[in-house]
Amino acid sequence: MLILPEELNTYDRFYRANLINSLSGFKSVSLIGTKNEDGVSNLAVFSNIVHLGADPALIGFVNRPLEAAPHTIKNIETDGVYTINHVHSSWVAQAHQTSAKYPEGVSEFTACGFTEEYLNDFAAPFVKESVIKYGMQLKEIIPIKHNNTFFVIGEVVMIHFPEELIATDGFIEADKAGSVCSLGIDGYYSTELITRLPYAKVK
Amino acid sequence: MLILPEELNTYDRFYRANLINSLSGFKSVSLIGTKNEDGVSNLAVFSNIVHLGADPALIGFVNRPLEAAPHTIKNIETDGVYTINHVHSSWVAQAHQTSAKYPEGVSEFTACGFTEEYLNDFAAPFVKESVIKYGMQLKEIIPIKHNNTFFVIGEVVMIHFPEELIATDGFIEADKAGSVCSLGIDGYYSTELITRLPYAKVK
Repeated sequence: MLILPEELNTYDRFYRANLINSLSGFKSVSLIGTKNEDGVSNLAVFSNIVHLGADPALIGFVNRPLEAAPHTIKNIETDGVYTINHVHSSWVAQAHQTSAKYPEGVSEFTACGFTEEYLNDFAAPFVKESVIKYGMQLKEIIPIKHNNTFFVIGEVVMIHFPEELIATDGFIEADKAGSVCSLGIDGYYSTELITRLPYAKVK
Repeated sequence: MLILPEELNTYDRFYRANLINSLSGFKSVSLIGTKNEDGVSNLAVFSNIVHLGADPALIGFVNRPLEAAPHTIKNIETDGVYTINHVHSSWVAQAHQTSAKYPEGVSEFTACGFTEEYLNDFAAPFVKESVIKYGMQLKEIIPIKHNNTFFVIGEVVMIHFPEELIATDGFIEADKAGSVCSLGIDGYYSTELITRLPYAKVK
Protein backbone atom coordinates (compact mmCIF):
# COMPACT_ATOMS: atom_id res chain seq x y z
CA MET A 1 0.00 0.00 0.00
CA LEU A 2 1.06 3.57 -0.75
CA ILE A 3 0.21 6.19 1.85
CA LEU A 4 0.49 9.87 0.89
CA PRO A 5 0.09 12.92 3.18
CA GLU A 6 -3.54 13.48 2.07
CA GLU A 7 -4.44 10.03 3.40
CA LEU A 8 -2.17 10.25 6.48
CA ASN A 9 -4.03 13.42 7.47
CA THR A 10 -7.34 11.53 7.60
CA TYR A 11 -6.05 9.03 10.23
CA ASP A 12 -7.01 9.50 13.87
CA ARG A 13 -4.27 10.51 16.31
CA PHE A 14 -3.56 7.03 17.72
CA TYR A 15 -3.56 5.18 14.39
CA ARG A 16 -1.21 7.80 12.97
CA ALA A 17 1.08 7.65 16.03
CA ASN A 18 1.34 3.83 15.84
CA LEU A 19 2.07 3.96 12.12
CA ILE A 20 4.73 6.68 12.13
CA ASN A 21 6.37 5.40 15.33
CA SER A 22 6.83 1.91 13.92
CA LEU A 23 7.82 3.08 10.44
CA SER A 24 11.35 4.07 11.47
CA GLY A 25 12.08 0.52 12.66
CA PHE A 26 13.49 -1.21 15.74
CA LYS A 27 15.06 1.09 18.28
CA SER A 28 17.22 1.07 21.33
CA VAL A 29 15.12 1.21 24.50
CA SER A 30 16.57 2.21 27.87
CA LEU A 31 15.64 3.71 31.21
CA ILE A 32 17.07 7.15 31.95
CA GLY A 33 17.74 7.85 35.63
CA THR A 34 17.98 11.35 37.11
CA LYS A 35 17.48 13.27 40.36
CA ASN A 36 15.54 16.49 40.86
CA GLU A 37 16.74 19.45 42.93
CA ASP A 38 15.05 18.03 46.03
CA GLY A 39 16.98 14.77 45.62
CA VAL A 40 13.95 12.76 44.42
CA SER A 41 14.96 10.19 41.82
CA ASN A 42 13.22 9.86 38.46
CA LEU A 43 13.18 7.03 35.98
CA ALA A 44 11.68 7.08 32.49
CA VAL A 45 11.76 4.84 29.43
CA PHE A 46 13.23 6.30 26.22
CA SER A 47 13.42 4.65 22.84
CA ASN A 48 15.11 7.17 20.58
CA ILE A 49 18.77 6.89 21.50
CA VAL A 50 21.58 7.28 18.96
CA HIS A 51 25.32 6.82 18.79
CA LEU A 52 26.94 10.12 17.79
CA GLY A 53 30.62 9.25 17.98
CA ALA A 54 33.19 7.16 19.82
CA ASP A 55 35.91 9.77 20.44
CA PRO A 56 34.65 11.81 22.20
CA ALA A 57 32.12 9.19 23.32
CA LEU A 58 28.83 10.94 22.56
CA ILE A 59 25.29 9.57 22.71
CA GLY A 60 22.11 11.51 21.94
CA PHE A 61 18.45 10.97 22.72
CA VAL A 62 15.15 12.59 21.82
CA ASN A 63 13.05 14.09 24.62
CA ARG A 64 9.40 14.75 23.81
CA PRO A 65 7.90 18.24 24.28
CA LEU A 66 7.99 19.63 27.84
CA GLU A 67 4.23 19.31 28.38
CA ALA A 68 4.45 15.56 27.62
CA ALA A 69 7.77 14.70 29.33
CA PRO A 70 9.04 17.45 31.64
CA HIS A 71 10.94 15.69 34.43
CA THR A 72 13.93 13.95 32.85
CA ILE A 73 15.09 16.93 30.79
CA LYS A 74 14.55 19.38 33.68
CA ASN A 75 16.64 17.20 36.01
CA ILE A 76 19.40 16.83 33.40
CA GLU A 77 19.52 20.59 32.92
CA THR A 78 19.76 21.16 36.67
CA ASP A 79 22.13 18.35 37.55
CA GLY A 80 24.23 17.92 34.39
CA VAL A 81 24.35 14.14 34.81
CA TYR A 82 22.10 11.16 34.07
CA THR A 83 22.28 7.41 33.64
CA ILE A 84 21.14 5.23 30.72
CA ASN A 85 20.22 1.64 31.61
CA HIS A 86 19.40 -1.18 29.16
CA VAL A 87 15.95 -2.77 29.41
CA HIS A 88 15.93 -6.58 29.61
CA SER A 89 13.33 -9.07 28.42
CA SER A 90 12.36 -10.33 31.89
CA TRP A 91 11.07 -6.92 33.03
CA VAL A 92 9.77 -5.01 29.98
CA ALA A 93 6.36 -4.47 31.61
CA GLN A 94 8.01 -2.81 34.62
CA ALA A 95 10.10 -0.59 32.32
CA HIS A 96 7.04 0.38 30.27
CA GLN A 97 5.19 1.32 33.47
CA THR A 98 7.69 4.19 34.04
CA SER A 99 5.94 6.00 31.16
CA ALA A 100 2.85 6.58 33.33
CA LYS A 101 2.45 10.20 34.38
CA TYR A 102 3.51 10.01 38.03
CA PRO A 103 3.38 13.38 39.79
CA GLU A 104 6.65 15.16 40.60
CA GLY A 105 7.85 13.97 43.99
CA VAL A 106 6.99 10.31 43.27
CA SER A 107 10.00 8.25 42.23
CA GLU A 108 9.37 5.75 39.42
CA PHE A 109 12.09 3.61 41.04
CA THR A 110 9.74 2.98 43.96
CA ALA A 111 6.48 3.12 42.01
CA CYS A 112 7.63 0.61 39.37
CA GLY A 113 9.76 -1.66 41.55
CA PHE A 114 13.32 -0.77 40.59
CA THR A 115 16.32 -0.37 42.88
CA GLU A 116 18.45 2.77 42.91
CA GLU A 117 22.15 2.06 42.67
CA TYR A 118 24.99 4.53 43.11
CA LEU A 119 28.30 3.67 41.45
CA ASN A 120 31.68 5.31 41.99
CA ASP A 121 30.15 8.44 43.58
CA PHE A 122 28.26 9.32 40.42
CA ALA A 123 25.41 11.68 41.39
CA ALA A 124 22.65 10.18 39.19
CA PRO A 125 20.93 6.89 40.09
CA PHE A 126 21.57 3.72 38.09
CA VAL A 127 19.05 0.88 37.83
CA LYS A 128 20.42 -2.07 39.81
CA GLU A 129 18.33 -4.54 37.77
CA SER A 130 19.95 -3.36 34.51
CA VAL A 131 22.98 -5.37 33.35
CA ILE A 132 24.45 -2.84 30.89
CA LYS A 133 24.42 0.80 31.99
CA TYR A 134 26.37 4.00 31.59
CA GLY A 135 26.73 7.41 33.21
CA MET A 136 26.37 10.55 31.10
CA GLN A 137 27.52 14.17 31.40
CA LEU A 138 25.31 16.68 29.56
CA LYS A 139 27.00 18.46 26.62
CA GLU A 140 24.14 20.25 24.90
CA ILE A 141 20.35 20.36 24.57
CA ILE A 142 19.24 21.26 21.04
CA PRO A 143 15.61 22.40 20.75
CA ILE A 144 13.90 21.05 17.61
CA LYS A 145 11.75 23.94 16.43
CA HIS A 146 9.49 21.86 14.14
CA ASN A 147 7.68 20.06 16.98
CA ASN A 148 9.12 21.32 20.31
CA THR A 149 11.10 18.15 20.99
CA PHE A 150 14.72 18.23 22.17
CA PHE A 151 17.85 16.44 21.04
CA VAL A 152 19.91 15.87 24.20
CA ILE A 153 23.63 15.19 23.71
CA GLY A 154 25.84 13.79 26.44
CA GLU A 155 29.30 12.33 26.91
CA VAL A 156 29.79 8.83 28.33
CA VAL A 157 31.72 9.18 31.59
CA MET A 158 31.19 5.74 33.14
CA ILE A 159 30.35 2.29 31.76
CA HIS A 160 29.25 -0.72 33.81
CA PHE A 161 28.52 -4.29 32.62
CA PRO A 162 29.67 -7.87 33.36
CA GLU A 163 33.05 -8.63 31.83
CA GLU A 164 31.82 -11.83 30.13
CA LEU A 165 29.67 -9.74 27.74
CA ILE A 166 32.63 -8.10 25.99
CA ALA A 167 34.18 -9.69 22.89
CA THR A 168 37.93 -9.49 22.30
CA ASP A 169 37.43 -6.54 19.92
CA GLY A 170 35.44 -4.41 22.38
CA PHE A 171 31.96 -5.31 21.08
CA ILE A 172 29.35 -5.68 23.86
CA GLU A 173 27.16 -8.74 23.18
CA ALA A 174 23.97 -7.13 24.48
CA ASP A 175 21.76 -9.98 23.23
CA LYS A 176 23.47 -12.31 25.74
CA ALA A 177 22.31 -9.97 28.53
CA GLY A 178 18.71 -10.12 27.26
CA SER A 179 18.72 -6.44 26.25
CA VAL A 180 15.65 -5.71 24.13
CA CYS A 181 14.72 -3.31 21.38
CA SER A 182 11.38 -1.61 20.79
CA LEU A 183 9.11 -0.91 17.85
CA GLY A 184 6.49 1.79 17.78
CA ILE A 185 5.17 3.14 21.05
CA ASP A 186 4.57 -0.13 22.85
CA GLY A 187 6.23 -3.14 21.14
CA TYR A 188 9.17 -4.89 22.83
CA TYR A 189 11.38 -7.44 21.03
CA SER A 190 14.20 -9.83 21.86
CA THR A 191 16.99 -10.21 19.31
CA GLU A 192 19.04 -12.99 17.77
CA LEU A 193 22.40 -12.51 16.08
CA ILE A 194 22.35 -13.02 12.31
CA THR A 195 25.99 -12.09 11.69
CA ARG A 196 28.79 -9.66 12.34
CA LEU A 197 30.39 -8.50 9.10
CA PRO A 198 33.93 -7.36 8.33
CA TYR A 199 34.71 -3.74 7.41
CA ALA A 200 33.37 -3.29 3.85
CA LYS A 201 35.85 -2.57 1.06
CA VAL A 202 35.29 -1.76 -2.61
CA LYS A 203 35.54 -5.07 -4.46
CA MET B 1 33.44 -4.21 35.03
CA LEU B 2 33.55 -0.44 35.52
CA ILE B 3 35.17 1.61 32.76
CA LEU B 4 36.08 5.23 33.46
CA PRO B 5 37.39 7.83 30.96
CA GLU B 6 41.01 7.29 32.07
CA GLU B 7 40.78 3.66 30.99
CA LEU B 8 38.67 4.37 27.91
CA ASN B 9 41.42 6.70 26.70
CA THR B 10 43.96 3.86 26.74
CA TYR B 11 41.91 1.73 24.28
CA ASP B 12 42.92 1.61 20.62
CA ARG B 13 40.63 3.27 18.09
CA PHE B 14 38.83 0.12 16.91
CA TYR B 15 38.28 -1.41 20.37
CA ARG B 16 36.89 1.90 21.58
CA ALA B 17 34.64 2.26 18.49
CA ASN B 18 33.21 -1.24 18.96
CA LEU B 19 32.59 -0.63 22.67
CA ILE B 20 30.92 2.78 22.41
CA ASN B 21 28.93 1.87 19.29
CA SER B 22 27.41 -1.19 20.94
CA LEU B 23 26.86 0.48 24.33
CA SER B 24 23.81 2.46 23.19
CA GLY B 25 21.99 -0.76 22.24
CA PHE B 26 20.06 -2.16 19.28
CA LYS B 27 19.28 0.35 16.57
CA SER B 28 17.18 0.81 13.49
CA VAL B 29 19.19 0.05 10.34
CA SER B 30 18.09 1.22 6.91
CA LEU B 31 19.41 2.11 3.48
CA ILE B 32 19.14 5.77 2.48
CA GLY B 33 18.68 6.38 -1.25
CA THR B 34 19.55 9.68 -2.97
CA LYS B 35 20.60 11.13 -6.35
CA ASN B 36 23.46 13.51 -7.04
CA GLU B 37 23.24 16.56 -9.31
CA ASP B 38 24.36 14.48 -12.30
CA GLY B 39 21.51 12.02 -11.68
CA VAL B 40 23.75 9.24 -10.32
CA SER B 41 22.00 7.30 -7.56
CA ASN B 42 23.58 6.68 -4.17
CA LEU B 43 22.73 4.15 -1.47
CA ALA B 44 24.23 3.95 2.02
CA VAL B 45 23.48 2.09 5.22
CA PHE B 46 22.58 4.16 8.30
CA SER B 47 21.91 2.88 11.79
CA ASN B 48 21.13 5.94 13.84
CA ILE B 49 17.57 6.78 12.90
CA VAL B 50 15.06 8.20 15.37
CA HIS B 51 11.37 8.98 15.54
CA LEU B 52 10.88 12.68 16.29
CA GLY B 53 7.12 13.00 16.13
CA ALA B 54 3.99 11.72 14.41
CA ASP B 55 2.23 15.01 13.57
CA PRO B 56 4.05 16.42 11.68
CA ALA B 57 5.61 13.06 10.78
CA LEU B 58 9.29 13.74 11.46
CA ILE B 59 12.21 11.30 11.45
CA GLY B 60 15.86 12.18 12.10
CA PHE B 61 19.15 10.46 11.41
CA VAL B 62 22.80 11.02 12.24
CA ASN B 63 25.23 11.57 9.35
CA ARG B 64 28.91 11.08 10.18
CA PRO B 65 31.44 13.89 9.48
CA LEU B 66 31.75 14.98 5.83
CA GLU B 67 35.21 13.44 5.37
CA ALA B 68 33.81 10.02 6.37
CA ALA B 69 30.38 10.15 4.70
CA PRO B 70 30.03 13.00 2.18
CA HIS B 71 27.63 11.75 -0.52
CA THR B 72 24.27 11.16 1.15
CA ILE B 73 24.14 14.48 2.98
CA LYS B 74 25.39 16.44 -0.05
CA ASN B 75 22.70 14.87 -2.25
CA ILE B 76 20.00 15.56 0.33
CA GLU B 77 21.08 19.18 0.57
CA THR B 78 20.99 19.56 -3.22
CA ASP B 79 17.84 17.60 -3.94
CA GLY B 80 15.76 18.07 -0.79
CA VAL B 81 14.42 14.49 -0.94
CA TYR B 82 15.61 11.02 0.03
CA THR B 83 14.26 7.55 0.71
CA ILE B 84 14.68 5.33 3.80
CA ASN B 85 14.40 1.58 3.17
CA HIS B 86 14.32 -1.17 5.82
CA VAL B 87 17.08 -3.80 5.72
CA HIS B 88 15.90 -7.42 5.77
CA SER B 89 17.59 -10.51 7.16
CA SER B 90 18.08 -12.26 3.79
CA TRP B 91 20.37 -9.52 2.45
CA VAL B 92 22.23 -7.92 5.37
CA ALA B 93 25.63 -8.57 3.74
CA GLN B 94 24.57 -6.70 0.61
CA ALA B 95 23.30 -3.79 2.72
CA HIS B 96 26.52 -3.69 4.75
CA GLN B 97 28.54 -3.59 1.52
CA THR B 98 27.09 -0.14 0.71
CA SER B 99 29.34 1.22 3.49
CA ALA B 100 32.44 0.63 1.32
CA LYS B 101 33.96 3.87 0.02
CA TYR B 102 32.84 3.77 -3.61
CA PRO B 103 34.02 6.80 -5.61
CA GLU B 104 31.48 9.45 -6.58
CA GLY B 105 29.93 8.47 -9.89
CA VAL B 106 29.59 4.80 -8.91
CA SER B 107 26.09 3.87 -7.76
CA GLU B 108 25.93 1.50 -4.80
CA PHE B 109 22.65 0.22 -6.28
CA THR B 110 24.64 -1.32 -9.13
CA ALA B 111 27.80 -2.08 -7.16
CA CYS B 112 25.94 -3.91 -4.36
CA GLY B 113 23.19 -5.53 -6.42
CA PHE B 114 20.10 -3.50 -5.56
CA THR B 115 17.36 -2.34 -7.91
CA GLU B 116 16.33 1.32 -8.16
CA GLU B 117 12.60 1.82 -7.92
CA TYR B 118 10.66 5.04 -8.56
CA LEU B 119 7.30 5.38 -6.88
CA ASN B 120 4.60 7.96 -7.58
CA ASP B 121 7.01 10.36 -9.38
CA PHE B 122 9.13 10.78 -6.24
CA ALA B 123 12.57 12.05 -7.35
CA ALA B 124 14.73 9.91 -5.01
CA PRO B 125 15.31 6.20 -5.66
CA PHE B 126 13.72 3.54 -3.46
CA VAL B 127 15.21 0.06 -2.96
CA LYS B 128 12.96 -2.43 -4.78
CA GLU B 129 14.19 -5.28 -2.52
CA SER B 130 13.07 -3.44 0.62
CA VAL B 131 9.58 -4.30 1.88
CA ILE B 132 9.00 -1.27 4.14
CA LYS B 133 10.17 2.09 2.78
CA TYR B 134 9.32 5.75 2.95
CA GLY B 135 10.06 9.00 1.11
CA MET B 136 11.41 11.99 2.99
CA GLN B 137 11.46 15.76 2.43
CA LEU B 138 14.37 17.56 4.11
CA LYS B 139 13.36 19.97 6.90
CA GLU B 140 16.67 20.89 8.54
CA ILE B 141 20.29 19.81 8.89
CA ILE B 142 21.67 20.55 12.36
CA PRO B 143 25.49 20.49 12.61
CA ILE B 144 26.71 18.91 15.87
CA LYS B 145 29.68 21.04 16.88
CA HIS B 146 31.19 18.53 19.30
CA ASN B 147 32.31 16.06 16.62
CA ASN B 148 31.30 17.46 13.21
CA THR B 149 28.42 15.04 12.73
CA PHE B 150 24.99 16.18 11.51
CA PHE B 151 21.46 15.55 12.71
CA VAL B 152 19.29 15.46 9.58
CA ILE B 153 15.56 16.02 10.08
CA GLY B 154 12.99 15.20 7.41
CA GLU B 155 9.24 14.88 7.01
CA VAL B 156 7.64 11.63 5.83
CA VAL B 157 5.89 12.35 2.52
CA MET B 158 5.28 8.82 1.23
CA ILE B 159 5.00 5.38 2.85
CA HIS B 160 5.06 2.05 1.03
CA PHE B 161 4.66 -1.47 2.47
CA PRO B 162 2.43 -4.55 1.98
CA GLU B 163 -1.01 -4.11 3.50
CA GLU B 164 -0.84 -7.40 5.43
CA LEU B 165 1.88 -5.92 7.70
CA ILE B 166 -0.37 -3.32 9.30
CA ALA B 167 -2.31 -4.12 12.49
CA THR B 168 -5.79 -2.71 13.04
CA ASP B 169 -4.37 0.08 15.20
CA GLY B 170 -1.82 1.31 12.62
CA PHE B 171 1.20 -0.56 14.03
CA ILE B 172 3.52 -1.93 11.31
CA GLU B 173 4.64 -5.47 12.21
CA ALA B 174 8.16 -5.04 10.84
CA ASP B 175 9.37 -8.35 12.29
CA LYS B 176 6.98 -10.19 9.94
CA ALA B 177 8.78 -8.52 7.02
CA GLY B 178 12.15 -9.72 8.35
CA SER B 179 13.33 -6.17 9.08
CA VAL B 180 16.50 -6.30 11.18
CA CYS B 181 18.18 -4.14 13.77
CA SER B 182 21.88 -3.54 14.28
CA LEU B 183 24.30 -3.42 17.20
CA GLY B 184 27.64 -1.67 17.11
CA ILE B 185 29.29 -1.04 13.76
CA ASP B 186 28.79 -4.45 12.20
CA GLY B 187 26.29 -6.66 14.10
CA TYR B 188 22.91 -7.48 12.51
CA TYR B 189 20.04 -9.09 14.45
CA SER B 190 16.61 -10.51 13.76
CA THR B 191 13.86 -9.81 16.29
CA GLU B 192 11.08 -11.67 18.00
CA LEU B 193 8.04 -10.05 19.62
CA ILE B 194 7.97 -10.29 23.42
CA THR B 195 4.81 -8.21 23.91
CA ARG B 196 2.91 -5.08 23.08
CA LEU B 197 1.82 -3.25 26.21
CA PRO B 198 -1.16 -0.99 26.88
CA TYR B 199 -0.77 2.73 27.54
CA ALA B 200 0.71 2.97 31.06
CA LYS B 201 -1.39 4.64 33.76
CA VAL B 202 -0.57 5.47 37.37
CA LYS B 203 -1.85 2.54 39.46
